[in-house]
Amino acid sequence: MPVDSKASTEVTAFRWVPDFAAGLVRDLRIRWALEEIERPYGIRLLDALNPRPADYFHEQPFGQVPSYRDDQVQLFESGAILIHLGLQDERLLPADVDQRMRSIAWLIAALNSVEPMLFELINIDIFNRGQDWTKERRPQVIEKIQARLKLLSDALGDKEWLEGRFTIGDLMMVSVLRNLRHTSLVAEVPNLDFYVKRGEARPAFQRALADQLAVFAANQPQPEGEAA
Amino acid sequence: MPVDSKASTEVTAFRWVPDFAAGLVRDLRIRWALEEIERPYGIRLLDALNPRPADYFHEQPFGQVPSYRDDQVQLFESGAILIHLGLQDERLLPADVDQRMRSIAWLIAALNSVEPMLFELINIDIFNRGQDWTKERRPQVIEKIQARLKLLSDALGDKEWLEGRFTIGDLMMVSVLRNLRHTSLVAEVPNLDFYVKRGEARPAFQRALADQLAVFAANQPQPEGEAA
Repeated sequence: MPVDSKASTEVTAFRWVPDFAAGLVRDLRIRWALEEIERPYGIRLLDALNPRPADYFHEQPFGQVPSYRDDQVQLFESGAILIHLGLQDERLLPADVDQRMRSIAWLIAALNSVEPMLFELINIDIFNRGQDWTKERRPQVIEKIQARLKLLSDALGDKEWLEGRFTIGDLMMVSVLRNLRHTSLVAEVPNLDFYVKRGEARPAFQRALADQLAVFAANQPQPEGEAA
Repeated sequence: MPVDSKASTEVTAFRWVPDFAAGLVRDLRIRWALEEIERPYGIRLLDALNPRPADYFHEQPFGQVPSYRDDQVQLFESGAILIHLGLQDERLLPADVDQRMRSIAWLIAALNSVEPMLFELINIDIFNRGQDWTKERRPQVIEKIQARLKLLSDALGDKEWLEGRFTIGDLMMVSVLRNLRHTSLVAEVPNLDFYVKRGEARPAFQRALADQLAVFAANQPQPEGEAA
């Protein structure tokens, strides 16, 4: 099992998050990649519900999770951490320059051409739920997402993975699309739906998800009046 | 001058765009990087005001500008193209692994931790200007952007560039922050304001910008009734 407190690779994660975020926090992306290449890693836990410690901003400028360190680097941004791991292991990123760079292009597409629209929807459906402005804006955002998913579906076609074989581009795209799990937007596009399910069925993903969720289960807040 | 119709490196760009987008279209990021490393490139023009040709989606899945090709790769996503160029030239990306990966982390931060908030503001200020929902949402978005820029400002501190020397992380971050030029949000943060101006003052940026704008000027639509 890759989770190993003595490993020199360390990833930060949250001790506990509410249900809407469980299984989506971004350390999952890194755990998944590390499982794919069977590299042991330790986890350093942070408290999601309180402000980050001041010195955390020196390693992660925006106070987000995850930050990452190993013998070579101290890094932030899940996309950069995946590229770092990919450049070290062909199971994550092909050696051929064109294939390698196109896989990185899909990773960037997930982060900049797909996820920003999903951020907007999550702001509407979760963080600003019920505010007046969301009623007018939501149908516009849904329409934009549907159009973008249609183009992504066209690009995937009947291929198993975006560049034919599994890469960090798929790892990131599947991770990003999972943020739509509270909607039927992916389910409405059959080849994308199977694509996400194919990603989630990988044993490395399953182990990574179980490890993230196990931490949350172990640190479930006690209901008031029942504190130990 | 890097623009050379016989070059094997080719970037797509728009023939003409309205003023709000002139100097911001993303081929500028690639032109700037190619100027920094003095690599000649050709431009293939597309019409921004009409739908992309169907076969363009084979090279750029979302129909966006730019797509890119050279002797090694056929690529999309400005972030991936910059990484491709950076991996070939230390003027864009240091050889040291930690510095190299941190520079890529800043590029990804620009695309996924800064730009999505700016997309939301641009949707409010430009593409949905005057719609009712924007009145309630805009102050929330402004507050989020200000908080994010404060953290970016803290990370930059009194350094000239985010990792001390100029990299594709700065090229991307400056390019992203320029999308706020219709507001005073960057001007309100002195070290970020100087940072953007430092980027814009680079001769390579100046040449790239002039070349993008020259195409728009040459293809300015004729006012109705004055067609040649």
